[in-house]
Amino acid sequence: VLSDLDVLMRARGIGMVVVPMHEAQHASFRWMTGGAKVTRGYAVKRPGHPPLLIAYPMEREEAAATGLAVRSIHDFGHEAIFRSSRNLADGYARFFGNIFRDVVAEGSIAFFGNAPVHLYAGIIDRLEADGWNMFRGDGEDLIQLARKRKDPREVETIRDVGRRTEEVVQEVRELLRARPADLRIGDIKELVTREIGRRGLIEDHETIVSHGRDAAIPHSRGDAAQRVEESVPIVIDIFPADRVSGYFFDLTRTFCVGSVPDALRAIHADVLSAFDTARREMRPGTPASTYQSLVCGFFESRGYPTTRSAPATTDGYVHSLGHGVGLDIHERPFFSLSDSNRDQIEEGDVLTIEPGLYFPDRGIGVRIEDTFVITKDGAEPLSHGSRALEP
Amino acid sequence: VLSDLDVLMRARGIGMVVVPMHEAQHASFRWMTGGAKVTRGYAVKRPGHPPLLIAYPMEREEAAATGLAVRSIHDFGHEAIFRSSRNLADGYARFFGNIFRDVVAEGSIAFFGNAPVHLYAGIIDRLEADGWNMFRGDGEDLIQLARKRKDPREVETIRDVGRRTEEVVQEVRELLRARPADLRIGDIKELVTREIGRRGLIEDHETIVSHGRDAAIPHSRGDAAQRVEESVPIVIDIFPADRVSGYFFDLTRTFCVGSVPDALRAIHADVLSAFDTARREMRPGTPASTYQSLVCGFFESRGYPTTRSAPATTDGYVHSLGHGVGLDIHERPFFSLSDSNRDQIEEGDVLTIEPGLYFPDRGIGVRIEDTFVITKDGAEPLSHGSRALEP
Repeated sequence: VLSDLDVLMRARGIGMVVVPMHEAQHASFRWMTGGAKVTRGYAVKRPGHPPLLIAYPMEREEAAATGLAVRSIHDFGHEAIFRSSRNLADGYARFFGNIFRDVVAEGSIAFFGNAPVHLYAGIIDRLEADGWNMFRGDGEDLIQLARKRKDPREVETIRDVGRRTEEVVQEVRELLRARPADLRIGDIKELVTREIGRRGLIEDHETIVSHGRDAAIPHSRGDAAQRVEESVPIVIDIFPADRVSGYFFDLTRTFCVGSVPDALRAIHADVLSAFDTARREMRPGTPASTYQSLVCGFFESRGYPTTRSAPATTDGYVHSLGHGVGLDIHERPFFSLSDSNRDQIEEGDVLTIEPGLYFPDRGIGVRIEDTFVITKDGAEPLSHGSRALEP
Repeated sequence: VLSDLDVLMRARGIGMVVVPMHEAQHASFRWMTGGAKVTRGYAVKRPGHPPLLIAYPMEREEAAATGLAVRSIHDFGHEAIFRSSRNLADGYARFFGNIFRDVVAEGSIAFFGNAPVHLYAGIIDRLEADGWNMFRGDGEDLIQLARKRKDPREVETIRDVGRRTEEVVQEVRELLRARPADLRIGDIKELVTREIGRRGLIEDHETIVSHGRDAAIPHSRGDAAQRVEESVPIVIDIFPADRVSGYFFDLTRTFCVGSVPDALRAIHADVLSAFDTARREMRPGTPASTYQSLVCGFFESRGYPTTRSAPATTDGYVHSLGHGVGLDIHERPFFSLSDSNRDQIEEGDVLTIEPGLYFPDRGIGVRIEDTFVITKDGAEPLSHGSRALEP
């Protein structure tokens, strides 16, 4: 939420944050501008002030439609600077200098967001040489942190993406139940792509539909040519975004057609136990890594290797418990056990819980994932469909 | 093309380029890795060597499917570093230091691509403090420059996106010809969205379907609720990307249903003359800005204001002539008249020519755009449909 950004900035003596966007729309710019439909621009935030959008004249009406205060790049000399500048970094430093003289910061100035790193490293150097007080932090992206807690409108948007995502998974269930002759993984992928598109969603990354050994490699996208076999797990990990708002949802189910082998059923039951344990225990005001430890402990007690007990293992529990979901598919909070991860579970977080167990040599992989919103009482699910192996 | 990157690096004494990707897929990483289906990773290039992909173990098979040499982040101590690092920028500097000690650069080291700017500014500072010879250039992105000239496979991919894009425009023509009762801009937008999706394309940005006054503001996306009126221009600017390869195409037509007013017909004829002049004159080995000057001169000779003759004008010719098209919708070469633009037209460039004339107060906007590949003989069109006002 935007008010968190004010708190984060004030705690560090930052008087102005600039989030640039050069062609490549990114989540932090989208968040800061409420989804401005522009192809370039600069979002500027000072503590206690609403964001200001600096836009191109050709896009002035799309910029104004955000409801934000809008100024033109030409108010800051863009035209004259770049007409006579033979060096991009020098030109941008002059342009930003003009912005900083006009929109005055009380404190240091920071750039955040995904933008051309080489260019911005040069811009920051030049601005500092020009006497501007540039924030040199520890690499932490304050916009990512501020995006972590969602406001109620964001939660409802994500809930609605979840509703449509579940409809798509239901279509997959029905296809698996019907089990037409010669069904292939590619048929499932095509169904998913079509059903995602029909619901105003975007398949920003290829959906994971992985079978057998592929299912045992968590991020394998799966092999379209592969035939769907009985008694072999199919992992469907689907994470569409709303076409308009850009908010994601993330859901994984593991299915098996035909008779379910005992080993698969036992592994699935253990993953579901880990899932239920994590969602039952999760509370705001606790470190996210707590739940990664909890699930590692649970799996280790059942005799499975984990990346905690055996960091290089590719068998057993090989990833972290989940991640935040918003305008990026993977965002804060993270559940990693690393010392650099100090993310807390907080009210308003939207996050996944997605334990899994993987055995590449046995062709078995199982993952169960839902997206939750954190309330004062714990983790409230935003998706509700069956987690059973049977489609 | 990749060999251009070697030339660009050698000319600057750069021994290694690293293109990081953190969650947000971007064109330079996609280009360098041939479209690796990973969610994070680092592409490393040394002159004369093929790219190396440093990937996460969970994504090892998707990384290997690129055909590139692949190494794991754990080969460079990622696990141990981030387990014990309380500061992201310090951690990444240690991680990259390990890479640089192993994959030895003969020359300086540069980071390019769209990644978290605050983090990378910090990483570069720390690496320099650790004694690494970091490239501090003028902001020019060498990967963007190397992506400019396309190889034949890229050209064929873009040509095929063009073929499908033209099919979508043909559907729009048929809808406009049928002209059902109460046709609205939103109906055209819905048709475009559906037809794009049906053809394995992605509508990465909302298609521009703008009518009347909106058509006179080049990047207005248009108003879905607006009714389609007779004798008023409709600008359709469509720029889908292939879902798998990520390559874009860009095409604009201006239509008018019912009788065409004389003023609109005259303006359309002038835009078409500018378009034909630019595409007829364009040759490899010349500065791109030449053609912006040419078209400004042509429009000025017809009495229209341009941003050359009147920089702040919103009437007349208010943008540049075109842009490269590839894995970004707007890429090199650019046609801007600014001193910092030294882009040449070269064989293998894929680019748009898209002159337009705009009169917001009169509710008239006309733009005509096709995508071309530059051959030794000039600009070869990759799209072929009629440019007439009549749908």
